[in-house]
Amino acid sequence: MTVIEQLRAALGDIVDTDSAALEACRGDRSGHMASGAPLAIVHALTVEHVQQVCRIATETRTPIVVRGAGTGLAGGANAGSGEIVLSTARMTAVHEIRTDDLLAVVEPGILNADLNDMLAPHGLWWAPDPASRSISTVGGNIATGAGGLLCAKYGVVRDAVLGVDLVLADGRLLHLGHRSVKGVTGLDLTSLVIGSEGVLGVIVGATLKLRRLVEGTTCTIAATFPGVRTAAAASAAVTAAGIQPAIMELMDAASLAAVASLLGLPSPPSGTAQLTIQTDGPAAAAEADAVVAVLTAHDGVVQVSHDREEGERLLTIRRSMHPAMAALGTTLIEDVSVPRSAMPAMFDEIARIEREYALTIPTVAHAGDGNLHPNFIFEGPETPPHVWAAADALFRAAIALGGTLTGEHGIGTLKSRWLAEELGADQWEIQRQVARVFDPLGILNQGKVFAAHA
Amino acid sequence: MTVIEQLRAALGDIVDTDSAALEACRGDRSGHMASGAPLAIVHALTVEHVQQVCRIATETRTPIVVRGAGTGLAGGANAGSGEIVLSTARMTAVHEIRTDDLLAVVEPGILNADLNDMLAPHGLWWAPDPASRSISTVGGNIATGAGGLLCAKYGVVRDAVLGVDLVLADGRLLHLGHRSVKGVTGLDLTSLVIGSEGVLGVIVGATLKLRRLVEGTTCTIAATFPGVRTAAAASAAVTAAGIQPAIMELMDAASLAAVASLLGLPSPPSGTAQLTIQTDGPAAAAEADAVVAVLTAHDGVVQVSHDREEGERLLTIRRSMHPAMAALGTTLIEDVSVPRSAMPAMFDEIARIEREYALTIPTVAHAGDGNLHPNFIFEGPETPPHVWAAADALFRAAIALGGTLTGEHGIGTLKSRWLAEELGADQWEIQRQVARVFDPLGILNQGKVFAAHA
Repeated sequence: MTVIEQLRAALGDIVDTDSAALEACRGDRSGHMASGAPLAIVHALTVEHVQQVCRIATETRTPIVVRGAGTGLAGGANAGSGEIVLSTARMTAVHEIRTDDLLAVVEPGILNADLNDMLAPHGLWWAPDPASRSISTVGGNIATGAGGLLCAKYGVVRDAVLGVDLVLADGRLLHLGHRSVKGVTGLDLTSLVIGSEGVLGVIVGATLKLRRLVEGTTCTIAATFPGVRTAAAASAAVTAAGIQPAIMELMDAASLAAVASLLGLPSPPSGTAQLTIQTDGPAAAAEADAVVAVLTAHDGVVQVSHDREEGERLLTIRRSMHPAMAALGTTLIEDVSVPRSAMPAMFDEIARIEREYALTIPTVAHAGDGNLHPNFIFEGPETPPHVWAAADALFRAAIALGGTLTGEHGIGTLKSRWLAEELGADQWEIQRQVARVFDPLGILNQGKVFAAHA
Repeated sequence: MTVIEQLRAALGDIVDTDSAALEACRGDRSGHMASGAPLAIVHALTVEHVQQVCRIATETRTPIVVRGAGTGLAGGANAGSGEIVLSTARMTAVHEIRTDDLLAVVEPGILNADLNDMLAPHGLWWAPDPASRSISTVGGNIATGAGGLLCAKYGVVRDAVLGVDLVLADGRLLHLGHRSVKGVTGLDLTSLVIGSEGVLGVIVGATLKLRRLVEGTTCTIAATFPGVRTAAAASAAVTAAGIQPAIMELMDAASLAAVASLLGLPSPPSGTAQLTIQTDGPAAAAEADAVVAVLTAHDGVVQVSHDREEGERLLTIRRSMHPAMAALGTTLIEDVSVPRSAMPAMFDEIARIEREYALTIPTVAHAGDGNLHPNFIFEGPETPPHVWAAADALFRAAIALGGTLTGEHGIGTLKSRWLAEELGADQWEIQRQVARVFDPLGILNQGKVFAAHA
């Protein structure tokens, strides 16, 4: 029997070979595509389905690509010739919501925003808030170690998961972690799975650490600056002044102009950059006053709102960044992260790279945590070599400033050739060997993350 | 040359074979001792010293026990016959304190309290606060994944480390993690090292995530209850009411009586249990009012202080627990952790085990996070078999309630025989293989953590 016949025999009509569906699994939101189309998609509904797929894949040595909603930005869920797509997107159950223990037990396919809609009536939320939250799954958030806008104050996925149920490549099921707040029994494999991008196993369940909804007002501050470096210095000064905003987003002039064009707003004066800052919690108003003082001292032209809805309107400009970029062409969204104090220097590096490679690189940043998203825009589906060369210069600059080449998007296929650059050869080899302990045949996300070590 | 001669030739007078010093390395604060005394102690002052010891140990296949201040409670740093003690206690430098990036770069030997004394003038602190903070090292805190009193609100060590420098058993140095808030480059080996209890490598440096000192008043509430179950239910009700105290400590009747005896205080009425709760930050006073309302509704007799020093005096009773136990005999301090809602049920289980094994088990709990420390008291240096049998019943009860056999002390030598019970055989084997990737010869903390799999 062929692999597809074996899958059909074991799993029936959840095995999907519709050519349009297969074609859709070649790419993710990065715009990049695997070469060729995968063999089949299995729409798993249960843990047992996942285990059966893994057993068949192991027996037949067929590579598996695990996929949630396919909203990744590093090609990690892209599936190509000869591969089985194991989709957990239909495993969307929420088994438990515990107000007393501040936890939820969920299946991986539930969307981040759907989960938070279910939690809100209980006065709870799951803090990780990637920009993709309305379209990305919790399982995908865990697999990529997703970040978002609120991270500096409320943490990333790594801070918000108590346990993970993981199916290994050979079909065995491991229950990692625990339901208690504390626990140090053996090695912390839960943390290891967070951000492991599908190379260790298939996430089939998670116990999430919840927060109570934040009470009090939310204050929103929008400030414009004569240039991006001034805006970056102002945001660093906010952190250095001891203020902890919930959100602190920076947009450079090219980003701001692109969004203004998309939304039909008046064009800002040339070179204008913007900071959008939200404070929340019991000290929101006092913190907003302190933010305004810092921004004004840094030549910011400041607008403040104490109304939550008006605040959301001010944030709309930032949230329109992705569609504004998409309107300009194909986008390679980069994701470097540096210590907060190095943000102005990183913007200098981006300006240098723009000059050297004759490119415009519209950049937004989660300024509260030093995570920058420079966008490379080009025509056609393939990233041109000179864009990769500029991205290479960008990664090296971030690493030289004490940062990393990916703050929240991951390595996937797009950055695997730079992984050893950041880790060093010894750590790269240790990481690869650790992955082989979980997946000795190397059938999970084959050729990704640890692929292209020179 | 013997191993000692090789060490001496390479490292000179930092190699210590003084018999009293060797003898002191056989035990930790658990009161348990390794059989026999180690070969030598190397008092490393530099990363290069650590690497040289590892190279010699690898060449000669000599086991290494890494040791900080020796304040562990699971026997993880106990060294016996034929072993080299590699001490990082003298590597105490603080290389950087960054107010702007909220990080510090430190050597592993600095004491937790000494570091925090250095951070305070900068308005900063490192949040992990094990009860041993004045005598335990930051490296040891990381190696054990230490917890403490403030964890429910301010997190554990896992939440407070950005990066670790790790020397492998063969002497190679890895730089894990990064200086930026975010970063998802490859597998999260930094998290894997936290709580790994010396089986993966030697922690020779760390980049710590700092917090700003909390502003505002601190309110302290001490409340007595007619029994421990009532006190446990009251503490669970505080969490369920949506209040997040900084500290919430529970003492049962036997603990309270022992401390009263030690401090020469009047004996509390028979059966009396106590909760000590601190709220802090901008909403401290309002939260204290809410706490008082919950405790009163649960039959608590409540005393409140808005003065920080008076609050510390109220906490002295809780902080005197360890000496009070030591005054009664040899102590086996256990460390189970359960979901917060299961605390009353766990106290029922402890009462059952007391009856079944005819023991008194004085118990304190970090009630804010469900971490209980039942104390077994006995005569002489060896834990008697019936105490181990009672501890076994305790671990099984905690696991059955969705908890873990160690919330913050670790597995070490004392709990390795229960590790597979909690992890399951498959996860136990995966963890052991992951450790072997880092240390293929198994010379680091040999016979600990993964030792006694039945």
